[in-house]
Amino acid sequence: MTIKDIARLCGVSVSTVSRVLNNRPDVSPEVRQRVLSMVEDHNYIPNNSARDLVKTQSDTLGVVVRGMSNLFFAEVLKAVTQTIDSRGYTAVMRQIGSDGDELKTGAVLEREKKLRGLLFLGGRFDYTPGEAALLNVPFVCCSYTNWFGSLREEDFASVSIDDRAAAHQAVSHLLALGHRRIAAVVPSRSDRSISELRYMGYRAALADWGIPPDPALVAECGGCFEMAEAYAAVERLLAAGAEFTALFTLSDTMAMAAIKALTDHGVRVPEDCSVVGIDGIPLSAYTVPTLTTLVQPAEEMGRESVALLLSMVEGTGGPRHVRMETTLRQGSSCAAVRQPVVPHKSVERE
Amino acid sequence: MTIKDIARLCGVSVSTVSRVLNNRPDVSPEVRQRVLSMVEDHNYIPNNSARDLVKTQSDTLGVVVRGMSNLFFAEVLKAVTQTIDSRGYTAVMRQIGSDGDELKTGAVLEREKKLRGLLFLGGRFDYTPGEAALLNVPFVCCSYTNWFGSLREEDFASVSIDDRAAAHQAVSHLLALGHRRIAAVVPSRSDRSISELRYMGYRAALADWGIPPDPALVAECGGCFEMAEAYAAVERLLAAGAEFTALFTLSDTMAMAAIKALTDHGVRVPEDCSVVGIDGIPLSAYTVPTLTTLVQPAEEMGRESVALLLSMVEGTGGPRHVRMETTLRQGSSCAAVRQPVVPHKSVERE
Repeated sequence: MTIKDIARLCGVSVSTVSRVLNNRPDVSPEVRQRVLSMVEDHNYIPNNSARDLVKTQSDTLGVVVRGMSNLFFAEVLKAVTQTIDSRGYTAVMRQIGSDGDELKTGAVLEREKKLRGLLFLGGRFDYTPGEAALLNVPFVCCSYTNWFGSLREEDFASVSIDDRAAAHQAVSHLLALGHRRIAAVVPSRSDRSISELRYMGYRAALADWGIPPDPALVAECGGCFEMAEAYAAVERLLAAGAEFTALFTLSDTMAMAAIKALTDHGVRVPEDCSVVGIDGIPLSAYTVPTLTTLVQPAEEMGRESVALLLSMVEGTGGPRHVRMETTLRQGSSCAAVRQPVVPHKSVERE
Repeated sequence: MTIKDIARLCGVSVSTVSRVLNNRPDVSPEVRQRVLSMVEDHNYIPNNSARDLVKTQSDTLGVVVRGMSNLFFAEVLKAVTQTIDSRGYTAVMRQIGSDGDELKTGAVLEREKKLRGLLFLGGRFDYTPGEAALLNVPFVCCSYTNWFGSLREEDFASVSIDDRAAAHQAVSHLLALGHRRIAAVVPSRSDRSISELRYMGYRAALADWGIPPDPALVAECGGCFEMAEAYAAVERLLAAGAEFTALFTLSDTMAMAAIKALTDHGVRVPEDCSVVGIDGIPLSAYTVPTLTTLVQPAEEMGRESVALLLSMVEGTGGPRHVRMETTLRQGSSCAAVRQPVVPHKSVERE
């Protein structure tokens, strides 16, 4: 089945069929309908190779995802790939681990695939101009900024929440419920990245209420938001006899792992310990108890990142820095303060 | 920084640098080390454009993902993209909803991107030869087969579990624990797809124990494994006064939604009702209670699907049908039978 066959069957010219397929206005509604029905009935797939051959520019955008099991990224990525598709570009994706170097990965991808632009989903917060110079195409930092780095504002673009403010908001919710001994489970206190920035928000909220930080209540778990690491960190807090009535974690999945560890050790959530997360992934509405969390607008962040990147690629706009709002969604994992945690073992059924 | 600069700085010829970068054996270890250090120090990125230009074939594989929020697919996809990368190919991904047509999407992608092969992650089980003829490149059905269709075995390839057997195994676990009134929450009983096949496994397990199927215990929720639909289906079962001591769902996330719905209505899991899922996503080990589930080897399925596709693309092998094993992982969401469920409302905290 070729375009000629479709034209013959419809009794119109090849150029008319072509105009319909390219969604051009100069075709009557009746003819358009007839052509589209014929295309549908015969499962005809337009062959764009000829058009592709005369294209002088690639239509490919690179997407480098850092932290491969991050469920929040999965939500953002869905919107990113849908928006790239709908704008007529092609996404080439590469995944790297938490210790991977997104800039080098992006630079290699840029040369291999002749990219027009790059979108980094997750990354370091401390790029230097020398590192960024590896890239010869516009790029957008999605879900992070250059807080600890030395890039000039006009040399890159970003779409993110205010990580420090979000953590501050989450911990303030616990403080408002009367909690004073609030534990934190963070990958790192000083990784010059998202973890350090959110830890700063935790510290700032405590400071607002005149509460000195207690190192015994902070568990560094390393890694990149993995559940196993968060689970082990909570177990270490309990084993060390740390006394806390609430627990702050950096993400929803870490919060779920924390709830699991507390429950497995006989600490009830929220009766004995409140837990709060950040992200608002769809799943967090179905945990037992429902997670209280700071919701990031994942879909909007994905769409906006692509729109911003394409405005730079197509030359209709320059680099900008878009800051998204987070919203507290109250679940059932937080309650007003009662007694400090006293760990005691329990055994699972089955 | 060009390859000439690297050669000059190392005091070797350009062709020596090239041999190192292409990992060729005819270079001394000392020189190799010197060149690689220089490349590292200067953040030099090899430019493969010239090599790309002389390539006559595309290195692009299409990946069409059906059911965009499926967390099991996210696990498979991680292995798929990593394997495609490591084999030196490029993945171009497209996501479609549960009502999307993966064959047409694949056919359009094939023409637009000059694909060498296609991998479908999730899809219909009832392709006809006419539909499959839309594709001119080898394709692999990942996580499904053509059970209800009419393709010849030699005309397509697949990597999947035995969906009927997995469901049979899950329900048999409940039967062995003494359960006789076992509810099922399935997207559809007759969608000629994965849902129907797993529902057949549920029916077959009941039949093995001489238990007649009870339509009052089966809730069709539509959609494509979404949590909201599964939650609503369990609520409908409870509202209708259905009496059951166990519940079978098609996926881990549906099982999590079911546990949530039961808990929200005062039905305790597993004390009042046992729940079993299928998938074994990492998250299911962190639910409260830990989910009992049939584990699919997600990573292995992803790797094997790409290996199978590339053997066809590169002409080293023909289409094959790989059947993967599932393993029962006992969590804490199932217990020996007690009393039938008597729904009563409870109120959430906070």
